[in-house]
Amino acid sequence: MTLDAVLSRIDQTLPEALARLCDLLRIPSISTDPAFRGDCDRAADWLVADLASLGFAATKRATPGHPMVVAHGGSGGPHFLFYGHYDVQPVDPIDLWNRDPFDPVIEDTPDGPVIRARGASDDKGQLMTFVEACRAWVAVHGTLPGHLTVFLEGEEESGSPSLVPFMRVHAAELSADLALICDTGLFSDGSPAIVTQLRGLAKCEITVQAASRDLHSGSYGGLAANPIHVLTRLLAGLHDDQGRVTLPGFYDGVPEVPDDQRAQWQALAFDHAGYLGDVGLSVPAGEIDRTPLELLWSRPTAEVNGIWGGYTGEGFKTVLPAEAHAKVSFRLVGTQDPSAILDSFRRYLEAGVPADCRVTMGFALGSPASRMAVDHPAFAAARAALTEEWGRPAAFVGAGGSIPIAGYFKSVLGMDAMLLGFARDDDRIHSPNEKYDVESFRKGIRSWARLLARLA
Amino acid sequence: MTLDAVLSRIDQTLPEALARLCDLLRIPSISTDPAFRGDCDRAADWLVADLASLGFAATKRATPGHPMVVAHGGSGGPHFLFYGHYDVQPVDPIDLWNRDPFDPVIEDTPDGPVIRARGASDDKGQLMTFVEACRAWVAVHGTLPGHLTVFLEGEEESGSPSLVPFMRVHAAELSADLALICDTGLFSDGSPAIVTQLRGLAKCEITVQAASRDLHSGSYGGLAANPIHVLTRLLAGLHDDQGRVTLPGFYDGVPEVPDDQRAQWQALAFDHAGYLGDVGLSVPAGEIDRTPLELLWSRPTAEVNGIWGGYTGEGFKTVLPAEAHAKVSFRLVGTQDPSAILDSFRRYLEAGVPADCRVTMGFALGSPASRMAVDHPAFAAARAALTEEWGRPAAFVGAGGSIPIAGYFKSVLGMDAMLLGFARDDDRIHSPNEKYDVESFRKGIRSWARLLARLA
Repeated sequence: MTLDAVLSRIDQTLPEALARLCDLLRIPSISTDPAFRGDCDRAADWLVADLASLGFAATKRATPGHPMVVAHGGSGGPHFLFYGHYDVQPVDPIDLWNRDPFDPVIEDTPDGPVIRARGASDDKGQLMTFVEACRAWVAVHGTLPGHLTVFLEGEEESGSPSLVPFMRVHAAELSADLALICDTGLFSDGSPAIVTQLRGLAKCEITVQAASRDLHSGSYGGLAANPIHVLTRLLAGLHDDQGRVTLPGFYDGVPEVPDDQRAQWQALAFDHAGYLGDVGLSVPAGEIDRTPLELLWSRPTAEVNGIWGGYTGEGFKTVLPAEAHAKVSFRLVGTQDPSAILDSFRRYLEAGVPADCRVTMGFALGSPASRMAVDHPAFAAARAALTEEWGRPAAFVGAGGSIPIAGYFKSVLGMDAMLLGFARDDDRIHSPNEKYDVESFRKGIRSWARLLARLA
Repeated sequence: MTLDAVLSRIDQTLPEALARLCDLLRIPSISTDPAFRGDCDRAADWLVADLASLGFAATKRATPGHPMVVAHGGSGGPHFLFYGHYDVQPVDPIDLWNRDPFDPVIEDTPDGPVIRARGASDDKGQLMTFVEACRAWVAVHGTLPGHLTVFLEGEEESGSPSLVPFMRVHAAELSADLALICDTGLFSDGSPAIVTQLRGLAKCEITVQAASRDLHSGSYGGLAANPIHVLTRLLAGLHDDQGRVTLPGFYDGVPEVPDDQRAQWQALAFDHAGYLGDVGLSVPAGEIDRTPLELLWSRPTAEVNGIWGGYTGEGFKTVLPAEAHAKVSFRLVGTQDPSAILDSFRRYLEAGVPADCRVTMGFALGSPASRMAVDHPAFAAARAALTEEWGRPAAFVGAGGSIPIAGYFKSVLGMDAMLLGFARDDDRIHSPNEKYDVESFRKGIRSWARLLARLA
């Protein structure tokens, strides 16, 4: 049984695989901050070298932003393209980390050993599950498991500005029979999961300006407009008292969940109390007439992700600031149009600012929700492979996050995608003290080996 | 005419006086930031040495915070205590300054020469008008102009935590017939002004906490409470659509302006369009049924002076933060009770946070509004001296800002105070590019010389 030989090799060489992952995690490839540009480049170089060592024809490809890694290898059977991203989220608030985010360590916890570092889960640990599966396969068979392309980007955490232009120019090179995307997680009870629907995302930064300079609240308070007040009023008005978003047209294109899907989701018996309890919460927020899984997978949201204005340092400053700012994002579902949503938000803001204030919107970007082609035979193969590895039935689930790449593969390359991954809800991705379970890593590698054996 | 000799000397030695002020301005005595503790100490030393050179028995007096400067000198006639503060506001946003805030320069502008630096107006330039008047007097007469105490603090911009305890301990030493406070300005049309009523101030920092850590809005958005939403809703609810503050009991103790005072204020013909126009605004905000001068001088306010939460750096991070924060202050009038207002605010916040969120209030401090004893003969003397120097009738005015010291002199020492100063509305105090007109400085010094001649 050559698959067994591959699985054994994966288990035997796990320490080396973890050491390689730690090497990659040591590179602080924060794509959103220009200060780390050189590090993003180094991460791409590291991956090119590693893929080349497996027999891939691997290249680093320049873009106006951070480089792409494209690697081709193997032959025979259907052609699969594997996608991951080597960039990571910023690390602030840095003082909440228990250690240097870029000094990875294997840490024992009551729930088993974890890899602790920024990017351990999102997405370096996940993408390396695929690479390590290929490595074990090559070690046992001498060849890659079928015709593969590996496509890794370095701008996923900063909106992927170079991705679509790069795909357009290299459409022939990147087109395969199916894209495999490893940037998602296990279901909250630990069952393996294949994501079949994803929320989209529209986001922007807004600025409210009032006076031409900061004012002393003693000299002007009560007479001069305060842009923080204006901003809080505008943002507070985004939701009604039922938790619904008030923007005109916001719910255009939002479908109700079909009865059969609702039944499947009910069968998952989602433990929302546990899911919220893990992060110190207990009561579902948001629309009051929707179930927790609906809220996460099939309902759109409006969220303020950041707000700032006035004096925010030590002590107190009785200032009336000239400006106040917020970063706002909308999770989208069904056929909601990101541009239409951002336009509606802009009109809402412009209609809501009082005399003497101006509001501007910047950095507006969006991608629609997506729904996978679950009738492609790879989905059944994946369900079987994952069920086998994890000893629990793999589920078709929704996902609350946006992975715009899935939509781009379809819209730009006409290629369907399948999303599976091994992250856990408590991986603290985008938060301080991010981790990835060593067991997610090991069984993740083994899951890919099983799936590639079925697909090859 | 010995007064003429003093006035001439002031004009002749103006360059030296400006050079001395620039020396003091070079010391970055930011009281609110612990990093500048040594600089606050240096500023106190500088003032002690300068006052000693005029014949004052000057001492630096330790407090748990920044030191006090106390100097006694002269003899005969009533005893006046002069108060000023040597600490300055923080300088951020530093990128909006056209030069180093602590590298003072005399700059020509279309409106005449100005001294440009943090603290030029608030309050180093102002306090030095009194010191320079004493210096010229000593040069001409050989003695100080009467029995004087100079009392300078270094914590005015950070809430004066040491002031009342220090006054209590040194009550006998600090008690005089009247306090003279130089921390106010000319009326907006440039007329000299004596402030006879001041708004009080209550302030605090509030924190809304939701989840136990920052969350990914893809994994939790729509289900988990967002503390920024909670904060914006709470702050937006502080005002109704008439601009009135909604806190229960907030208007208890707020008097209507008496008819005779209203008539006086109307006679001032306040140019609110010009006042607002200078800072890029045009429409009075706040309570819609009040006149602009009422809003500034005799109406209470609630203002958010700072707000922060979530991701506020470059780029975008789709985070649901664990916490959101705001700095909030209330300008008070009449007999409004700062503690009662802060209590009402706390109850409002606690009643308004949804399940799973907690709100805490910190750094709560307050001082009530105050009203001066205008029948003290020094007020008539000051009106005459100022009218003579500036060639325009001096007015009794209100002030929107809080100078809690006036209230403390009364409540702790039983001493009345008179507030006069020479700052201009466009001095940008608390803002980038603060300045003080050279003419404010020169005529300010001369005004004190004239007043001291009348009082001595």
